Amino acid sequence: MSYNPDNVFAKILRGDLPCFKIYEDDHSLAFMDIMPQASGHALVIPKYAAVTLADLPLAYAQPVLAAVQKVMAAQQQVLAAKGVVLMQLNGTEAGQTVPHLHFHLIPAHLSTLKAHGAEQGDMAQIKAIGEQLAAVLQ
Amino acid sequence: MSYNPDNVFAKILRGDLPCFKIYEDDHSLAFMDIMPQASGHALVIPKYAAVTLADLPLAYAQPVLAAVQKVMAAQQQVLAAKGVVLMQLNGTEAGQTVPHLHFHLIPAHLSTLKAHGAEQGDMAQIKAIGEQLAAVLQ
Repeated sequence: MSYNPDNVFAKILRGDLPCFKIYEDDHSLAFMDIMPQASGHALVIPKYAAVTLADLPLAYAQPVLAAVQKVMAAQQQVLAAKGVVLMQLNGTEAGQTVPHLHFHLIPAHLSTLKAHGAEQGDMAQIKAIGEQLAAVLQ
Repeated sequence: MSYNPDNVFAKILRGDLPCFKIYEDDHSLAFMDIMPQASGHALVIPKYAAVTLADLPLAYAQPVLAAVQKVMAAQQQVLAAKGVVLMQLNGTEAGQTVPHLHFHLIPAHLSTLKAHGAEQGDMAQIKAIGEQLAAVLQ
């Protein structure tokens, strides 16, 4: 699938749309999912025009894993979450809704997750948790 | 969590238990999940004693991503799967059942998946799909 530079996450990366940012480095951006499947649901995306994981250059593997590990550790610290579900959907046929590669990090048990991409959460609560995570990640 | 070398995947890595192997290199092993959430459900595990993604050394990121990409491509080729769900559960509190880091690669739509770790599949069918994937991955 060719990359559509008008997707929502591309706009967030360009600063054309806002997000509740919790972490950023040269290769990755992390922010809160506004349709959380559980409280504290965050996303990590590479700063690379990849639709799915198949498109990600291997050179991004290490920095993106480092960002994922940092966000998971912050979730565990801030939210006292012992378990974190990592989910990453490749293709609309898998349920992917935004065509820019993203890793869901959901501090909850798999069996308790709300449906993916179904309902916007409480924005004030998402913002508050995002600020707590961002504070730990600085 | 400390690593338990008697977990099922450690035994598979040591050759003490069988698996339907589809791919192997110096850093990773891939084999069929025998409790598939959809037909063609495969697992990629690093050859490193990591319980969760938090334990994986960054040096493994690149080779493990390469293995994941290869298996996904094989699933898409063999099974005509356009979408692949990647899922990776960190901690029993997330639903992780085997305490060795593993990436689920499930060629299906998220909304159609069977429950995780709930029921053994048709072993003859799993073996047959595993052989097709292994043939492509050689």
